[in-house]
Amino acid sequence: MKVSVIVIGDELLLGQVIDTNSGEIARHIAPYGWEVEDVQVVGDSAVEITRSIDRAFELSDVVLTTGGLGPTKDDITKRVLCDYFGGQLVEDAAVLENVKEVVGRRGFKLNKLTAAQAIVPTSCRVIQNRVGTAPIMWFERDGRVLVSMPGVPFETREMFQSEVFPQLLRKYHTDIAIEHAVLMVTDYTESGLAEKIAPWEEALPPHLHLAYLPKPGLIRLRIDGAHPDRGFIKAEVERGAAELRAMLGPAVLATADLTPAQILLKECGGHGVMLATAESCTGGNIAHELTLVPGSSEVFAGGIVSYSNEVKMRVLGVGADTLELNGAVSEPVVEEMAKGAIEATGAHLAVATSGIAGPGGGSEAKPVGTVCFGVALKGADGTVACKTAVAHFPGNRSRVIDASTTRALIMAVKMLRGQL
Amino acid sequence: MKVSVIVIGDELLLGQVIDTNSGEIARHIAPYGWEVEDVQVVGDSAVEITRSIDRAFELSDVVLTTGGLGPTKDDITKRVLCDYFGGQLVEDAAVLENVKEVVGRRGFKLNKLTAAQAIVPTSCRVIQNRVGTAPIMWFERDGRVLVSMPGVPFETREMFQSEVFPQLLRKYHTDIAIEHAVLMVTDYTESGLAEKIAPWEEALPPHLHLAYLPKPGLIRLRIDGAHPDRGFIKAEVERGAAELRAMLGPAVLATADLTPAQILLKECGGHGVMLATAESCTGGNIAHELTLVPGSSEVFAGGIVSYSNEVKMRVLGVGADTLELNGAVSEPVVEEMAKGAIEATGAHLAVATSGIAGPGGGSEAKPVGTVCFGVALKGADGTVACKTAVAHFPGNRSRVIDASTTRALIMAVKMLRGQL
Repeated sequence: MKVSVIVIGDELLLGQVIDTNSGEIARHIAPYGWEVEDVQVVGDSAVEITRSIDRAFELSDVVLTTGGLGPTKDDITKRVLCDYFGGQLVEDAAVLENVKEVVGRRGFKLNKLTAAQAIVPTSCRVIQNRVGTAPIMWFERDGRVLVSMPGVPFETREMFQSEVFPQLLRKYHTDIAIEHAVLMVTDYTESGLAEKIAPWEEALPPHLHLAYLPKPGLIRLRIDGAHPDRGFIKAEVERGAAELRAMLGPAVLATADLTPAQILLKECGGHGVMLATAESCTGGNIAHELTLVPGSSEVFAGGIVSYSNEVKMRVLGVGADTLELNGAVSEPVVEEMAKGAIEATGAHLAVATSGIAGPGGGSEAKPVGTVCFGVALKGADGTVACKTAVAHFPGNRSRVIDASTTRALIMAVKMLRGQL
Repeated sequence: MKVSVIVIGDELLLGQVIDTNSGEIARHIAPYGWEVEDVQVVGDSAVEITRSIDRAFELSDVVLTTGGLGPTKDDITKRVLCDYFGGQLVEDAAVLENVKEVVGRRGFKLNKLTAAQAIVPTSCRVIQNRVGTAPIMWFERDGRVLVSMPGVPFETREMFQSEVFPQLLRKYHTDIAIEHAVLMVTDYTESGLAEKIAPWEEALPPHLHLAYLPKPGLIRLRIDGAHPDRGFIKAEVERGAAELRAMLGPAVLATADLTPAQILLKECGGHGVMLATAESCTGGNIAHELTLVPGSSEVFAGGIVSYSNEVKMRVLGVGADTLELNGAVSEPVVEEMAKGAIEATGAHLAVATSGIAGPGGGSEAKPVGTVCFGVALKGADGTVACKTAVAHFPGNRSRVIDASTTRALIMAVKMLRGQL
C-alpha cells in the first residue's frame, strides 16, 4: 500500500522546525509492507495545500497530513479541508469535552483560541486526540482516505500508532509477507563496505533488497524481503544476514537495529559490569546517548563532564603534571580520566574523551577534529586495564562531537569483547 | 525569489534519515528575501525524480536538489539529470583530482566506487565539493537553474553557504529589503501568548508579519518585515520588537535567536561566573546542550551525571539520609546535588535535575514526568543560595529529558537575573 504524506506549516519552509513526522510514519508502516511514496512540505496557504492534496491523490489512495492545526491564526488547514471535502465547520461537543480534559490535565485553563479546536468540518469523522488539543480528522471520497493529524511530533506518533494506522490497516489489508534483517557494521567506510560485498550483492535474488544507511562510525545494513510465502521469505532474509555476518566477522557490531549506546548497554548487562563516562570534548553527549535508553540506569552509574582542567584534576584525579606535560588532549590524560571515573563512581568500565571539537582551539600538532579516547576496565582481581586511541574527524563542532560519541561507545563495546 | 527543494533518497521515505538540508537552506536564504516555496521528498527512482523536477519548475525558477549522489549503486540522480538536461556522462579530470584530495585528507585510499564520483554530465558546470567526494552540478535551461548537491548535511551546508548561494545571488538579485527581529519568550503557552498579544497582532501593518515557533518551555516570536525602503522597514521591525518587549516584560528571555544554553552562557559571561551541572534524569543533556556552543569552555567548568544514588553520594556528597528520607526525586536532593556540584567543580553557579523520565519508575505520588530542579549560586561572600522547584512534563522519555533541560537552563538564567 502506498501512502503520500503532506507536511503543512510555514515554520517548516522557513526552516524553523524540521519534519520528523514523515519519517516516524514511514518507519512504523514499513513492517506491514506499506510505504511512503512521496512527502510534500507546504506552507500555510490554501492554494498550496489544495494543490498538494490533488498531487498526493494522483500517486496514492491514502494521504496523511500533519500540522497546520494549531490554535494561532496562521493555521488554516481545517478550513481548506472543509472546502475540499465539503460540509460546514461546526463545534463538536465530544471534541470540546476532549480538549477540556487535555487542557485540564496539563494544568492550564481553557481559553477561546484553544476552545476553537473543537470546531471541525461536518464532512469528517473525528478521532479524538488523547494527547493534544487538535482533533484528528478522517475524510473519505471515492474509496480514498485523507487523515489530518496534528504537527506536534509526539502527538502524531502516539495517535498514528495507536489509532490512525490500525484503522487504516482494518480498511485496506495486504497479502505480501515482509521480513527484514539489520546488521550494524563498523570498521568500514560506506564505499569500502560496498566494494567488499559487491559480488554478493550483485547475486541477490529479486525478492531481496539491500540498503545502506551510513552514519559516522557505523553503517546500518538492512536486508528487506517481500514474497507471498512468509516462511520462504523469512528463511531467505535469515540466510542473507548469516552470509553477511560470515563475510564481515567482528565488524558486525550487532544484528539488530540498535544505537551504539544500546549495544554498549546490552554488552555491559551481559558482562554484569557498571559503566561510567569521563567526557571532555563530547561534553556529556555520551552520557546523554546512554540515558536516552529506557532502563539504562541498571547499567549506567553516571559520569563526569570534566570540561575544565580543574574538574579533570579535582573530580577525576588527573595529575597536574600529566596535563602540563602532554596537554589536555592526549592519551595519558584520557587514560587517567577513564581510571579516575572508575575510582570516582565505583563503576567497572569507563570511557573517556578529550579532543578539539572546534571551531577554535586547534594547532598544527593537534588540529580541530583531533580526539583522544581511553577505555578502562576493572577486572575481578581489582586491576584496571586501559586502552587508548587517537582519531581525527572532519566537519564542524557538532559533527566532531557526534562522531566522537559513536567511536567512544564502540571502543567500549570492543574492550568488553576483548577485541581491542 | 522562490526556490523549490527536492530531497532525494529511499532512506528518507523509509524514515531512516531525516531531512535537515531543506531547513538549513531555508534559514540561510530567508535574510536575503528568498524563500523555499515547497519541498518534495522522493525516492531513488528515475520516474519520481523526473516528475519532481517538472513539478518544481512549475513553481520556481530555482530548483535545489540534495542527495542521491552516493557511491553505492542505489543512487541514480546523476543519470536522471543527464537524461533531463542532455549531454553525456564523462569523467572530469578536475573532479577526479578533487575526489583524490578529499579521500586522501580523510586517510583513505581511493577505490573504484568513489573514483566514479568524477563522472559527470557534460551538460552541467561543476562546483568542486571541498568537503566531500560528490561533485556539485549546476544546470541551466531557459534561464532557470537546477543545482544538484550532496545529501550529507555538513557537505550541503558548507558548500551551499560558501559557493552555491553566493553564485545564485550573483545571478538573480532582489530589490526588497528584509529585516527581522526575534524574541525568546518563556512563562507562556502558545495560545496564552497568542491571546495576550492578539489586539497588537491584529493591528500589525501589512509590511510586518509575526510568526510563532513553540518549543517545550520556550516560544520563539519572529517579526519579519519586507519593504523597498531599508531604513523604514528596519525602524518598523525595531518598533514592533520594542512594543512586544514592553508588553511581555521579563518573560522575554532574550532578544536574539538564541538557544536556552546560549542565553545562559551569555548571562554567566556577563556576571563573570563559572557554571556547573549535576544531572540525574537529564543524564548529561544539559551539559551536552551547553558544550554544543562554541566557546562554552570559557564559562562551563563541567558537570556530574549522577545517575545512580552511589554517584550522588560519592561525587556530589548528597546525604544518605536525605536520599532515604525524601527519595532521589525530591527538592532536598536536588538542593544537595546543586550545592555538591559547586563544591566538586569549584564553579559559582550549578543547576541540578532529578526526575522520572519514564517509561518505568513512576508511582502515584511521583508519576512519570515528575522532575525536581535545583539552582545554587555562590555569592561573593562565599555563602550559597539555592532555589528548588518541581514540574510535571507530558510525553515520552526523550520529551521529558528535552523539556527538563530547557526548564533547568531557564531557571539558571532567572537565578542570575534575580527573578526566582
